[in-house]
Amino acid sequence: MKKIMNDPNKIVDEMIEGMIVAHSDLIKRVPETGVIQRKTKKAGKVAIISGGGSGHEPAHAGFVGEGMLSAAVCGAVFTSPTPDQILEAIKAADEGAGVFLVIKNYSGDIMNFEMAQEMAEMEDISVENIVVDDDIAVEDSLYTQGKRGVAGTIFVHKILGYAAEQGKSIKEIKKLADDLMPNIKSIGLALTGVTTPGAAQPSFTLAEDEIEYGVGIHGEPGYRREKLQPSYDLADELLTKVVKEFDGKEKGQFAVMINGLGGTPLMEQYVFTNDVKKLMDKRNWSLDFYKIGNFMTSLEMQGLSLTLLHLENDFYLEALNAPVKTIAW
Amino acid sequence: MKKIMNDPNKIVDEMIEGMIVAHSDLIKRVPETGVIQRKTKKAGKVAIISGGGSGHEPAHAGFVGEGMLSAAVCGAVFTSPTPDQILEAIKAADEGAGVFLVIKNYSGDIMNFEMAQEMAEMEDISVENIVVDDDIAVEDSLYTQGKRGVAGTIFVHKILGYAAEQGKSIKEIKKLADDLMPNIKSIGLALTGVTTPGAAQPSFTLAEDEIEYGVGIHGEPGYRREKLQPSYDLADELLTKVVKEFDGKEKGQFAVMINGLGGTPLMEQYVFTNDVKKLMDKRNWSLDFYKIGNFMTSLEMQGLSLTLLHLENDFYLEALNAPVKTIAW
Repeated sequence: MKKIMNDPNKIVDEMIEGMIVAHSDLIKRVPETGVIQRKTKKAGKVAIISGGGSGHEPAHAGFVGEGMLSAAVCGAVFTSPTPDQILEAIKAADEGAGVFLVIKNYSGDIMNFEMAQEMAEMEDISVENIVVDDDIAVEDSLYTQGKRGVAGTIFVHKILGYAAEQGKSIKEIKKLADDLMPNIKSIGLALTGVTTPGAAQPSFTLAEDEIEYGVGIHGEPGYRREKLQPSYDLADELLTKVVKEFDGKEKGQFAVMINGLGGTPLMEQYVFTNDVKKLMDKRNWSLDFYKIGNFMTSLEMQGLSLTLLHLENDFYLEALNAPVKTIAW
Repeated sequence: MKKIMNDPNKIVDEMIEGMIVAHSDLIKRVPETGVIQRKTKKAGKVAIISGGGSGHEPAHAGFVGEGMLSAAVCGAVFTSPTPDQILEAIKAADEGAGVFLVIKNYSGDIMNFEMAQEMAEMEDISVENIVVDDDIAVEDSLYTQGKRGVAGTIFVHKILGYAAEQGKSIKEIKKLADDLMPNIKSIGLALTGVTTPGAAQPSFTLAEDEIEYGVGIHGEPGYRREKLQPSYDLADELLTKVVKEFDGKEKGQFAVMINGLGGTPLMEQYVFTNDVKKLMDKRNWSLDFYKIGNFMTSLEMQGLSLTLLHLENDFYLEALNAPVKTIAW
């Protein structure tokens, strides 16, 4: 796999430098770290922090800014940031009202974020967290016990970021996050594998006419391989699985994210969007908010994921619609 | 090449439908056409229109909205829209102050847009145009006499869109466009070929370790193939060529666009951005505005383009920084 890079060992560092020069109005780097923080003035509010391995850009640094994340921690490619790095982010972002960590459900992330949380608490910073496990494709996985955390994480950033901006307390945000999490379900499919920088081979390969349902954002195995189907059938497969998770929900109103995995053209993402809309119409369930594009990628992987957020609480939609100042929302 | 689609002959139609359902707050479709227009109220201002073949998303429909384009015409993949379609766009967008066409320099586009312009003038709509030919890679090409029009077109949309929003007359906008065009220079490189929907083969292929400099956004031949180089060397090759075009310019201030061609991860685009910044620093030329991401793509092609806009006139930077309401700016 050809990549535009210099030294694979410096790719994350150079990427961060590139982001900082390009977006110096919005973000800055905590020197000598993989922490990107926003430039807004501190106002005594709760700080929302996210992060994880790199290779999922624009997640998470692209969502740092007013109304969303206070900081993001960039680990090496597909590798959790260290507790030290996360602690740096917590300390840099803290405004005195507590820091809230958005953690995707990977064993390495959980271990390191929770260790950083303990270290911060020893320094008298109040910290809470939520573990995002929106990927319904498989139970347990290469790096996960339970369900993986994927693109639905971006909705979590947005809604909690708005709550923080509104001045809600860390306890209120914890309650909001706990209530929100069961309302977000995602599932993806891949057309190609993915190769980490410097690796000789992709972590998996698919035949010329083959796809895999349920692949994770680090190339973790999904639940079925088959011949590529028309977009409508792909949408039906994924949506049927997601919808099942919401059985018995009274309010058939949803926000949707169609998320490109890095190498999939927008044209295909919009064709798929059209099919998802048709299938939702058949169920008389409405889509009240759309987010289409590349938000939580897996380097150059071709494929996409579908996320539905059940709009159980009116606050969710209000939060999604609120303006922010970020690179990529 | 696997693609998420249904019928390749309906891919543009279904893409447009997907865009409309997802962004119904911003855009609407002129029924039975490939024309996407903005929903803002008409206010007697000049309307800026762009368009061309599809497959370059988010260009051009992603730039329809307040402060930028009034309408975009979507042709078939890599195929100019017909004069009839362009005329529909002109009529839909006209607010009584004239319509300005942004045309990329491809023979089919020029023929069809100019024919539509004549048809509109017969209906007493005042129309002017600019032909964008920012690609310095090669002179003449598969579908072009002179230089091709590529990602610099987006800067043209932005600056003319702002001028229209400010209430400038069509004559003032024509003058602005004529002055602006020599200040925009682009050049790209490809890591992979591109396959149009339904085609059995890509239009060109590159070896596993090979790149091509100067490839066009429809896969037109570039100026040299060689082994993949480090990002810094790629940036040096492209930037040296662009900078040469600005020899003798007094004011070393520029806006830059690093544009992913569809299949290139943001990580790589930011590494490249970092290298471009270093090379500009060495020249003591400043980058006062950055735009990084996928703006003018070529379906799933891997690669990127570099655009420099010489900020000769302070109005350019003011226009670039002005807020807009679009899908993709």
